[in-house]
Amino acid sequence: MADEVIKQRKLEHINVALAQSIAVAQPANWSDIHFVHQALPEVNLDEIDTRVTFFGQTLRYPLLISSMTGGHPDVISINRNLARAAEEYGIAMGVGSQRAAIINPAVSYSYAVVRECAPNAFLIANIGAPQLIEQAQHPAFSMQQVQDAIKMIEANALAVHMNSLQEAAQPEGDRRAVGEVEALKRLTQQIDRPVIAKETGAGICQEQAMLLRACGVAAIDVGGAGGSSMSAVEAARSELHGDKKTLEIGKLYSDWGIPTPIAIVEAQAAHLPLIATGGVRSGLDVARALALGANLVGMAFPFLRAASESYERVCEVLENTIREMKVAMQLSGAANIAQLHTADVVV
Amino acid sequence: MADEVIKQRKLEHINVALAQSIAVAQPANWSDIHFVHQALPEVNLDEIDTRVTFFGQTLRYPLLISSMTGGHPDVISINRNLARAAEEYGIAMGVGSQRAAIINPAVSYSYAVVRECAPNAFLIANIGAPQLIEQAQHPAFSMQQVQDAIKMIEANALAVHMNSLQEAAQPEGDRRAVGEVEALKRLTQQIDRPVIAKETGAGICQEQAMLLRACGVAAIDVGGAGGSSMSAVEAARSELHGDKKTLEIGKLYSDWGIPTPIAIVEAQAAHLPLIATGGVRSGLDVARALALGANLVGMAFPFLRAASESYERVCEVLENTIREMKVAMQLSGAANIAQLHTADVVV
Amino acid sequence: MADEVIKQRKLEHINVALAQSIAVAQPANWSDIHFVHQALPEVNLDEIDTRVTFFGQTLRYPLLISSMTGGHPDVISINRNLARAAEEYGIAMGVGSQRAAIINPAVSYSYAVVRECAPNAFLIANIGAPQLIEQAQHPAFSMQQVQDAIKMIEANALAVHMNSLQEAAQPEGDRRAVGEVEALKRLTQQIDRPVIAKETGAGICQEQAMLLRACGVAAIDVGGAGGSSMSAVEAARSELHGDKKTLEIGKLYSDWGIPTPIAIVEAQAAHLPLIATGGVRSGLDVARALALGANLVGMAFPFLRAASESYERVCEVLENTIREMKVAMQLSGAANIAQLHTADVVV
Amino acid sequence: MADEVIKQRKLEHINVALAQSIAVAQPANWSDIHFVHQALPEVNLDEIDTRVTFFGQTLRYPLLISSMTGGHPDVISINRNLARAAEEYGIAMGVGSQRAAIINPAVSYSYAVVRECAPNAFLIANIGAPQLIEQAQHPAFSMQQVQDAIKMIEANALAVHMNSLQEAAQPEGDRRAVGEVEALKRLTQQIDRPVIAKETGAGICQEQAMLLRACGVAAIDVGGAGGSSMSAVEAARSELHGDKKTLEIGKLYSDWGIPTPIAIVEAQAAHLPLIATGGVRSGLDVARALALGANLVGMAFPFLRAASESYERVCEVLENTIREMKVAMQLSGAANIAQLHTADVVV
Ligand SMILES: Cc1cc2nc3c(=O)[nH]c(=O)nc-3n(C[C@H](O)[C@H](O)[C@H](O)COP(=O)(O)O)c2cc1C
Ligand SMILES: Cc1cc2nc3c(=O)[nH]c(=O)nc-3n(C[C@H](O)[C@H](O)[C@H](O)COP(=O)(O)O)c2cc1C
Ligand SMILES: Cc1cc2nc3c(=O)[nH]c(=O)nc-3n(C[C@H](O)[C@H](O)[C@H](O)COP(=O)(O)O)c2cc1C
Ligand SMILES: Cc1cc2nc3c(=O)[nH]c(=O)nc-3n(C[C@H](O)[C@H](O)[C@H](O)COP(=O)(O)O)c2cc1C
Repeated sequence: MADEVIKQRKLEHINVALAQSIAVAQPANWSDIHFVHQALPEVNLDEIDTRVTFFGQTLRYPLLISSMTGGHPDVISINRNLARAAEEYGIAMGVGSQRAAIINPAVSYSYAVVRECAPNAFLIANIGAPQLIEQAQHPAFSMQQVQDAIKMIEANALAVHMNSLQEAAQPEGDRRAVGEVEALKRLTQQIDRPVIAKETGAGICQEQAMLLRACGVAAIDVGGAGGSSMSAVEAARSELHGDKKTLEIGKLYSDWGIPTPIAIVEAQAAHLPLIATGGVRSGLDVARALALGANLVGMAFPFLRAASESYERVCEVLENTIREMKVAMQLSGAANIAQLHTADVVV
Repeated sequence: MADEVIKQRKLEHINVALAQSIAVAQPANWSDIHFVHQALPEVNLDEIDTRVTFFGQTLRYPLLISSMTGGHPDVISINRNLARAAEEYGIAMGVGSQRAAIINPAVSYSYAVVRECAPNAFLIANIGAPQLIEQAQHPAFSMQQVQDAIKMIEANALAVHMNSLQEAAQPEGDRRAVGEVEALKRLTQQIDRPVIAKETGAGICQEQAMLLRACGVAAIDVGGAGGSSMSAVEAARSELHGDKKTLEIGKLYSDWGIPTPIAIVEAQAAHLPLIATGGVRSGLDVARALALGANLVGMAFPFLRAASESYERVCEVLENTIREMKVAMQLSGAANIAQLHTADVVV
Repeated sequence: MADEVIKQRKLEHINVALAQSIAVAQPANWSDIHFVHQALPEVNLDEIDTRVTFFGQTLRYPLLISSMTGGHPDVISINRNLARAAEEYGIAMGVGSQRAAIINPAVSYSYAVVRECAPNAFLIANIGAPQLIEQAQHPAFSMQQVQDAIKMIEANALAVHMNSLQEAAQPEGDRRAVGEVEALKRLTQQIDRPVIAKETGAGICQEQAMLLRACGVAAIDVGGAGGSSMSAVEAARSELHGDKKTLEIGKLYSDWGIPTPIAIVEAQAAHLPLIATGGVRSGLDVARALALGANLVGMAFPFLRAASESYERVCEVLENTIREMKVAMQLSGAANIAQLHTADVVV
Repeated sequence: MADEVIKQRKLEHINVALAQSIAVAQPANWSDIHFVHQALPEVNLDEIDTRVTFFGQTLRYPLLISSMTGGHPDVISINRNLARAAEEYGIAMGVGSQRAAIINPAVSYSYAVVRECAPNAFLIANIGAPQLIEQAQHPAFSMQQVQDAIKMIEANALAVHMNSLQEAAQPEGDRRAVGEVEALKRLTQQIDRPVIAKETGAGICQEQAMLLRACGVAAIDVGGAGGSSMSAVEAARSELHGDKKTLEIGKLYSDWGIPTPIAIVEAQAAHLPLIATGGVRSGLDVARALALGANLVGMAFPFLRAASESYERVCEVLENTIREMKVAMQLSGAANIAQLHTADVVV
């Protein structure tokens, strides 16, 4: 039964995200961050070098298709469209939480399709921190189950998503968090892939970045507030199911959290590779995130909307994003990503 | 006659509050106060300890149903619904100003019903500071009358409300204030219950907090601006009665006062237990008030609206508030109220 | 001819002011100034002492009916209504620019009526600084003419208004200003009444306050921006007359100048008695101006509107203003104007 | 073919500018800059001295008709109307990019008409920095071609416009920028006229001002953001041509850049004569730019709109601008431009 519930939930997440307004404006946001224009930039637009190295692998662009889906036959085409584009553009991609397939191997292909379509891309497996510990309704995942998730997509890295807010806003959510720190420490010691600690919309502060470093994670995805809100997604689901209690939580907390730009700056304290996800909506935003200190920039919703249409739409989103990012780089005098990291920005 | 006037006024207050918009937005308000999200909170949502001790009694939640009503047969059911909920949830409750019953013992039961329905709750009696001194139209209350008020509900504490603004906006208001300080000093020396000095919507600044401490009060309810405005309530009454003079005062002064969040911070100078009332509208606001330094958090209007419908609605408000408060506690890493007091907040 | 033009202009000023929107909101305004509420004020509302002494005369309230009109038979009733109220309430009153009567004695009575109706009030004569020097179209006023103006209303003081902006926005305006400083110095030496330097909507900065003091003026009316704008008045007149050139100036410059609250603070550098005029619209604003440092507070437009209706309406405006001012005084703990000067305000 | 394309583009620029909204509001803008009013200004409005000296030539007003057009027979009348006014009022004028005529001498007269109509005015030739280097589709201009451009209008100075943003937003835009610095250095050494480095809407920061000085330029036109946006112009053109790629760039980047007031302050670091262009819309804005440190103030769009109607409309714009500027000068106590440079402004 539980596996069917999770499978169903996965589909609802996608449908809700596509049908409703799940983005929440934040007081501090991307448009507050201004580059200092360089009138004589000494950079040729068509010769900008956008490559980055991420855990030993060279990506053609500092871009990540953030963890979103899998777990239901209906989402296979979405993951296929995303993966083909990741392969084509030489960027990174994450899959959605693999809990559905860990519990119900019948849906594994909805994840595995990603590696099938993207044999060379940097792929990131995905499990939830709340599932690393024993919960009221289910035991903790075993180390073997985590390994299986990685193997399912021959992942280059594993993202452990932290989503206490989402769980609290879910009628059936996991409500325990004690022990996650210890479980994460064990995980990073026993898994032979880099572990990325990933927030899902509420951001990372300086103290938590230091804590995650102490847990041995290899990178942090700050997953800040200002873009898709999992709390808003759950509120929409609660509305659907007529669950007033979690509906209230989902709505009240939909603007909770640390805005992504601030989270990038805070998380730098840990001196780990940083991924910036949350509310990135153009190549200009990508450039802003990189200038603030991110190493890779993720987008979820814009890719989801495109992938639900076609592979070509995903490529179009990528083309636009890359073109826009390059203009920001030229005008701020950055011929490559390393120079962009040191570009002047004014808040 | 005076007793009938007061009795009638009590009913009008309730009716106006239920029918009109009496809340006034303030420049500094609850939504400006942000918790710092803890991605790995190490707190289990269902095991959060929300208990507090208030003057030796343990409350299950740091919540107070603020002083509102009594003095008219029609409000008995409201006080009954509130009191039953206070008993059920183990929280504190205040009654409205007992002046009506002190002058006209016939309406005593509208207050006494509260103790009848809440034999174990922490109950707070209520009289006005302006009635502690001689006014143009009536003498000061005697110490015996104050004792009677306490006895009327077998109160655990006595709140002395300070409401000069409301009196100024009332056609029949008490316009003297000289001598209140001395009267309050005498009162705290002679009454064998803790005396709580309570503002009613205009807040407490640092200097006044120190003055109240010098008067010997045992706690302060900062009663700040930003929620129900007694000035707006009186403006609505003046409109009803066609009294243009006080109508203008009521309207002009409806945003007068120190916003509740600021008042909490200011009043801390006195190092007394603090109650935060004024504009608290969710469990998230409750958590914010506690993080800023309050020991107990009061709500008036949300409980009034619910109690005018049914006991069940009051319970629902409480359930929502508690659920919302716990989410804020978990996500800011506070397993109990003491830890919430030290949680990081950003303004 | 010139006298007819001026006479006509005087009437237009009044008609425009009554018919059009001539008030201009400013970035810094009265509502940004907050008193610190005193929960236990120790002040009796009905015993507040609102008296002030101004150049040796005791006024019952720190209020001034600002210089507005005279110069046309049609405005006699306005000045009569204002003067009766000034006498009744024991406050100060100014008349409008007396240039019209200096040039054309036939209209003197429209000013003299003020002293007739207010035998005991503190009255302020009014001439313009630009008329103290030779202009393209007319010579400077002689000292005798200024004396005549004072005598016309048996004035207690003389206001010299500074209105370069208004002149620039007037088709027929006086465009010279060189020599006004010297002329003002001469005037203050030769006139046996206190001379008040009065801006008319653009305010006084610190440097100009010091300059005015060096000119020997006895008091400053800061006449700041934020209330009636003479520039807007002239724009409306230019529209009427189809003069596009000055219309543009009038519109472009209608928010020029130093807001009244800021001007009060700036002008204090001169250590002279200060009058605050410009945008004062309630007794709460009056109290704010006094708390910021003004000694007398003037209003023009609210009195004009009332006086164009009846004497009773003027009294009503005064009653409201006084009542509102007293509430602010009580709630900020000021039993008299001296205490109000030291009340805490937060900007 | 290329020459026809450029010729056509020139006409489109003008038509788009006249038909569409191409101005973009900026966070920091002119209306945030306030003069400190001087109540006794000691300046006669009609005797204000507005003359300035610019590269040895005396201009009657510190005004510049900014570089805009040429290159198509249809724009000859526009340039004629502008030039006649420049001559009449003794101000400076620039022509639009002369690239069209350099490539296609047949359209030279559309530029040369300017000197024909303005034999004594200070005229500024105009070429683009991107054309100083080799681009994918065309070689760099030779020194001879640049000399020809100057000779074409017997220019007093040469403006080299920097417009990387515009090029990036143009389907057919020049996408290289490497080498512009060296090319500019060579140019300033070999040309016998003062070279003005001119941004076209994205502004100059302190570092770039220093770099331009090192390149040997004689003056800087800060061309800041806040007025006409070449990015918005190109977006409108892309819309016309159905080019979605550059349309997105044009729209996304239409508010990119340093606002003009900030650019003036930043560029002062270079201690060179400064021209302020970008969003100046009244004589009050002109005065603000001068007070902030500009030596000459340019307007483009307001003159374009007027010149597309008639010579008389251009004169009217100039008359209004001058009148408005003088009022600001009088009221801030500045009898000439040197005094205006030292006037107090508050931001
Ligand atoms: C429909 C949907 C499903 C998601 N599922 C997951 C998930 O399973 N695991 C995860 O780590 N993040 C998940 N996320 C969060 C995204 O990875 C990302 O952090 C978030 O959407 C913010 O990015 P955006 O504003 O670009 O959408 C999901 C987001 C959406 C919209
Ligand atoms: C209808 C009504 C009646 C009230 N009566 C009293 C009272 O008698 N005594 C008192 O101390 N406060 C009284 N209050 C003030 C409340 O206790 C509380 O301080 C105020 O309403 C702000 O809280 P809120 O914004 O949650 O409503 C009353 C408030 C309302 C709305
Ligand atoms: C119709 C009208 C006429 C005025 N005439 C004069 C005048 O003759 N002399 C003067 O010093 N001020 C004059 N003033 C300015 C006022 O005294 C006052 O400074 C200004 O109106 C701002 O105050 P308010 O906002 O309360 O109207 C006039 C104002 C108005 C509205
Ligand atoms: C239609 C149009 C054409 C322009 N062409 C040129 C040009 O060829 N060379 C140049 O240096 N600037 C050019 N500009 C930029 C202007 O000189 C000026 O920097 C810009 O428009 C900002 O000023 P404004 O806000 O007053 O319009 C052009 C502007 C417009 C509106």
